[in-house]
Amino acid sequence: METEPRLIASPDHAVVWHQDRLYLLDQRHLPARTDFLALESAAATAEAIRAMVVRGAPAIGIAAAYGVVLAARARYAEQGAGWRTAIEADLAQLAAARPTAINLFWALERMGQRIATLDEGDPEPALLAEARAIHDEDRAGNRRMGELGAELIETPTEVITHCNAGALATGGYGTALGVVRAGFAVGRIRHVYADETRPWMQGTRLTAWELAESDIPVTLQADHAAASLMATGCIGWVIVGSDRIAANGDVANKIGTYGLAVLARYHGVRFMVAAPTSTIDLAVASGAEIPIEERDPDEVLACGGTRLGPAGVNARNPVFDVTPAALVDAIVTEKGVVMAPTREKIAALMAA
Amino acid sequence: METEPRLIASPDHAVVWHQDRLYLLDQRHLPARTDFLALESAAATAEAIRAMVVRGAPAIGIAAAYGVVLAARARYAEQGAGWRTAIEADLAQLAAARPTAINLFWALERMGQRIATLDEGDPEPALLAEARAIHDEDRAGNRRMGELGAELIETPTEVITHCNAGALATGGYGTALGVVRAGFAVGRIRHVYADETRPWMQGTRLTAWELAESDIPVTLQADHAAASLMATGCIGWVIVGSDRIAANGDVANKIGTYGLAVLARYHGVRFMVAAPTSTIDLAVASGAEIPIEERDPDEVLACGGTRLGPAGVNARNPVFDVTPAALVDAIVTEKGVVMAPTREKIAALMAA
Repeated sequence: METEPRLIASPDHAVVWHQDRLYLLDQRHLPARTDFLALESAAATAEAIRAMVVRGAPAIGIAAAYGVVLAARARYAEQGAGWRTAIEADLAQLAAARPTAINLFWALERMGQRIATLDEGDPEPALLAEARAIHDEDRAGNRRMGELGAELIETPTEVITHCNAGALATGGYGTALGVVRAGFAVGRIRHVYADETRPWMQGTRLTAWELAESDIPVTLQADHAAASLMATGCIGWVIVGSDRIAANGDVANKIGTYGLAVLARYHGVRFMVAAPTSTIDLAVASGAEIPIEERDPDEVLACGGTRLGPAGVNARNPVFDVTPAALVDAIVTEKGVVMAPTREKIAALMAA
Repeated sequence: METEPRLIASPDHAVVWHQDRLYLLDQRHLPARTDFLALESAAATAEAIRAMVVRGAPAIGIAAAYGVVLAARARYAEQGAGWRTAIEADLAQLAAARPTAINLFWALERMGQRIATLDEGDPEPALLAEARAIHDEDRAGNRRMGELGAELIETPTEVITHCNAGALATGGYGTALGVVRAGFAVGRIRHVYADETRPWMQGTRLTAWELAESDIPVTLQADHAAASLMATGCIGWVIVGSDRIAANGDVANKIGTYGLAVLARYHGVRFMVAAPTSTIDLAVASGAEIPIEERDPDEVLACGGTRLGPAGVNARNPVFDVTPAALVDAIVTEKGVVMAPTREKIAALMAA
């Protein structure tokens, strides 16, 4: 990996295909450093996903799609007509990078379907076009979700968001933060409270940076301060993204989302999930079937790069949790809005 | 301030009177460093409280009581018989150190009552005896609370605690962690999950250290991970301390406590507050009247000493929140237990 200083660091440039190479804005060090990593192979792309250089379910899917392009280039150069067999190992390696976000598998499945239509000639142009289409459709979908989500906010209000479901987590514009952008533009969202989102601090490092860059007023808070904020009555909506939505409408998202949903219901605050239909996994019946990634306890035992926990003490570090559909007021997708999601409503949306 | 290496760093030594001087175990740097600060004056004691060298409502009260001894010594040396007038400024300075924990004002009030009984001779012996009594009674009260709290746990279970309400926060043994110690000793508490407690990380730095020193099994978690843990069904009780309890049973405690109480009720988990009667403030009718300290936003914008938030972004940093009495299953004091607290039950306890 090397850095590419000619690229412009912006929240809309989390994943960039530029001069035949894949660049990822290294989100581990934002906002202090705005470095791009240039990736040359599927293996490097898989490692970048695992190490959270890129994160956010849609952005992971897009990065993986471009990773397939890199894989196809290398396999075709190595093996010629044998690339179609050889690339299976690359697809498997990319799929193993992280377990929870379904968009990763969705993007790889779509790239695989395109591969199945190709002959034994150079696959790069067709696969690059497919990856670009995934990327462009994601961005366009986010714009649409922004409009649909903003329309749900009847009275101008303040909102809470958790983690980062913004331009940085997607192909651009954002899912939850797309709704925030659109809602702010039409005067329905006055202020955003961003949970800091331990242990990776995506709220502090990514969401606050992204909103400040767009001149949207944002205030950070410790994750556990959300309850006392809701108790003041100023919050109308919680707006989050998702890493996987089950067929019954259960929502896997960043750890802490489920608690926010319980608190929202208790305080009469409405709860909106903004996610593209590529996040909906009809193959899992309920949230109980969604695999929840556990990461290294040291992520919790340290803070800002400094180890704070005593030696010999353990930590649990689930990265996601599951919010039951019953606590979700609205799922906003590019295909439309599902209010009070149920299996039947989700199925109807996906069939439309 | 200077360090005193001959003192033994232990969770039971948060506040130590040793060879006519007050020593505080500097809790800002635990567990990485175990330094005592020697305090020579009421002004230095007030600053140590403000800067969180010592924290935890009962420990703050005890430190302030010893601070009055230091003040009396200095004023008597300076002014002789005039000490009783001159010390009023010291009492006011100590009282202004932090606003929320009532134990600070309670201890100063008690020292003031003792001052009122003294003649114009050297006040130090009598005031030192009073401060030591406050300290000893706190420790003894914690032992009693431990027994009473442990008896409430009918079925062996795992528990969640928040912040640090342990030996370090008190005269020794702890309030919430006193219940944990006693419950673990009799086999009713099998395991403790400690919320890390941003932004000061009292859970990671203090509670985990304190429990590990006592060989009580503890697992840390990000504060917002508590909901997903409760959803597993393994948690029987949430056990916390308090900084001030209103006459109606509303409980001010570390930010995040209120959200835990809402989550506990939602999941059928019981919610216990362990605090000495010196924490109960009959002068405030409800939690709405308790002043909630707000600290520097930079505490939230940084993590482990590293600034992570982007320039120009603000944060809210309330240090405490208020849990309504209706969400509290039990308040455990050294005088007895109040189940489902109400104004009448609290009044009866205090009158007993």
